[in-house]
Amino acid sequence: MIIMALNCGSSSVKYQLFDWEKKEVVAKGMVERVIVGDSYIVHEVPGRESYRLEQDCSDHRAAIDLVIRVVTDSVHGALKSVSEISAVGHRVVHGGEKFTCSVQIDDEVLNAVKEVQHLAPLHNPPNIDGIEAARLLMPTIPHVAIFDTAFHQTMPEHAYMYAVPYEWYEQHGVRRYGFHGTSHLYVSKRAAMLLGKPASQCNIVTMHIGNGVSHCAIKNGISVDTTMGLTPLEGAVMGTRCGDIDPAIPAFMMQKDNLSAKEIDSVLNKKSGILGITGKYTDRRDVIEHAENGDHRCQLALEIEAYRLRKYIGAYMAAIGRLDAVVFTAGVGEMGALIREKAIENLEHIGIVLDRERNRGAMTRKRESLITSDDSPVKVFVIPTDEELVFTEDVVAILNGTYTDHMNFEYSFAKPDFART
Amino acid sequence: MIIMALNCGSSSVKYQLFDWEKKEVVAKGMVERVIVGDSYIVHEVPGRESYRLEQDCSDHRAAIDLVIRVVTDSVHGALKSVSEISAVGHRVVHGGEKFTCSVQIDDEVLNAVKEVQHLAPLHNPPNIDGIEAARLLMPTIPHVAIFDTAFHQTMPEHAYMYAVPYEWYEQHGVRRYGFHGTSHLYVSKRAAMLLGKPASQCNIVTMHIGNGVSHCAIKNGISVDTTMGLTPLEGAVMGTRCGDIDPAIPAFMMQKDNLSAKEIDSVLNKKSGILGITGKYTDRRDVIEHAENGDHRCQLALEIEAYRLRKYIGAYMAAIGRLDAVVFTAGVGEMGALIREKAIENLEHIGIVLDRERNRGAMTRKRESLITSDDSPVKVFVIPTDEELVFTEDVVAILNGTYTDHMNFEYSFAKPDFART
Repeated sequence: MIIMALNCGSSSVKYQLFDWEKKEVVAKGMVERVIVGDSYIVHEVPGRESYRLEQDCSDHRAAIDLVIRVVTDSVHGALKSVSEISAVGHRVVHGGEKFTCSVQIDDEVLNAVKEVQHLAPLHNPPNIDGIEAARLLMPTIPHVAIFDTAFHQTMPEHAYMYAVPYEWYEQHGVRRYGFHGTSHLYVSKRAAMLLGKPASQCNIVTMHIGNGVSHCAIKNGISVDTTMGLTPLEGAVMGTRCGDIDPAIPAFMMQKDNLSAKEIDSVLNKKSGILGITGKYTDRRDVIEHAENGDHRCQLALEIEAYRLRKYIGAYMAAIGRLDAVVFTAGVGEMGALIREKAIENLEHIGIVLDRERNRGAMTRKRESLITSDDSPVKVFVIPTDEELVFTEDVVAILNGTYTDHMNFEYSFAKPDFART
Repeated sequence: MIIMALNCGSSSVKYQLFDWEKKEVVAKGMVERVIVGDSYIVHEVPGRESYRLEQDCSDHRAAIDLVIRVVTDSVHGALKSVSEISAVGHRVVHGGEKFTCSVQIDDEVLNAVKEVQHLAPLHNPPNIDGIEAARLLMPTIPHVAIFDTAFHQTMPEHAYMYAVPYEWYEQHGVRRYGFHGTSHLYVSKRAAMLLGKPASQCNIVTMHIGNGVSHCAIKNGISVDTTMGLTPLEGAVMGTRCGDIDPAIPAFMMQKDNLSAKEIDSVLNKKSGILGITGKYTDRRDVIEHAENGDHRCQLALEIEAYRLRKYIGAYMAAIGRLDAVVFTAGVGEMGALIREKAIENLEHIGIVLDRERNRGAMTRKRESLITSDDSPVKVFVIPTDEELVFTEDVVAILNGTYTDHMNFEYSFAKPDFART
């Protein structure tokens, strides 16, 4: 059984094909520059050189059509026919309050996703385009929606409500939703395995640090708080997003620089964060290199990023109660040993005893590592995330009728015999 | 020697007269509804009934003139002549980066305060009006400026810089400044006394919870972080201010409700916070009463407020390292036993062991109380604040030539023999 995972962004289509019986990825890749022009696909099959093809894709349908042609190509492909694909799992960024777990897509579900697209005007429309195109191109198989927000729907009201006029919630859905749900789900279940306890007995803070950055407070296996909010702009400092700031700053700067609401939103999302501080870089490797060469603003960016991580670890430790583990994941979380060290050094007073050697040794995207000392009351792990595997397992479970929700469904990666491929 | 402390708001003038030799307040009061019409003064002399006089004050000069007339009134006053006043201490909300401690006001200082008034357009202009009027009315005596921001100028760069375009800092001064400095200063010095250590050896989190709410992380006696930012809007949930929210919300709601930058700023400052959540109340006594009677939104407001306090305690504990004490102060901090209990219960894992009886017993604005158990690694104190005393001591020290800054100057209230009057 082959499961396709699809992730449609505003100008990209990311895909993965997973062979469920063999438990291995058979192909993955990405179409870039969809709609904007000069689009191309990069297709990867394990054990082969990657294949690149330039082909104009004026919309998501053309891009998914290209994906299907390439994955079934007799030379470069991985499948004989599209009919080998049993189902498609679609990443949907915003599920609002309607979706607390993954669901098979029908017209009603699709309409519900459209109803909340105003909450994620940059993300949900391409997700919807992708679903509509894929359903047209693969009409006979089930399509499943997996939401970034669903994992966080267990948050209590005092964690998700803002102290703004209550009508904003009633009329426009203004509340904290949280994102990166599948990543927080995956690494928290893996951490529970490493702790040797059921997830439902584990208190964990997960720190997803990639292009987007979000942290999650997980109590007894469920999300009770997270840093991203109504949108993915809130919380940690990100590559180009500001994260937490004085909420007076947007209106202050609109008046200073004569900006519209859309323009300030764009600056806060695209020209802030690490890019805003350094003026040049978003890739932390560049930031670290130039910091070491004496660039003050790069040094500052590292200090700010690590300091904010540190504060969220403390905040969530107070929020959750007894803490079992902290998990770092995603590109920077997995590779950024220096940032991890700055974030968790000298936290012995709250139970975190860093092992510097172990931390420096944990710079791979393939291995799970403990980076605290053996006697550290709170463990800190580096765990490579695998969101596509969550997509795939949800799809298979829905196909098999065994899916319930993330709390009750037993994922393969939460079992002792799970081995990463 | 009589010292006058003056605090001029947009439509109010608050004053206090302190007899330095006797160490006691000789009179205090407030002119309300200045400029807006129907203004009146309420004047209090210890041991007498309070005196109220209606008198139109079309500007701050008229209000300060009224104050002088009432404090020297032969029946209701406390002084024989205005010449008994030796100096005036003026509260100035925003000192920008220029002022790291209190200073005697001359034209140069006044111009520097004017230069940063764009950072606090609601607060600095009435402060400036008050200074100008008081200098005209009491031209022969020294006037001193005491800044809300000065105490926080010791914050390191990684705590005060936002992850926004760096030019915003260079061109418009966008950074964290922090406010309530004199209150954080006073209660942290008192806490050091109660801990029996020099302030320079104490790590303390101070939580000023009044109409405005701010917290401060104090390491070795100096402010290293605080919750209010460029403006007093950031951080904790306040009576009518939103505190921390997704920074995308202002632009989102401007577009939904067709609001201007000024209008959204007004809603976030005046119609949010506890008022926004409950729809009706800002006074926590009303909120608690209606919460107990089953009002869900009042219950929610209490839970949100306490939960955010809890998270900041954890965040600052991680930021500072070893923590000696947490201090609650100002109206809600001193009187709100229920909110304190919700904020710090079940924090044993990070060293705070609440004593519920002691906490419930600490509901007075006159006494300093310990509200943790004797074996709690981190002490929690309730300490009534006294900002006016800081104003007064700074003024006296500047008059005497003994003032340096809050780190090196030894306040009377930081000495073992200090007794509150």
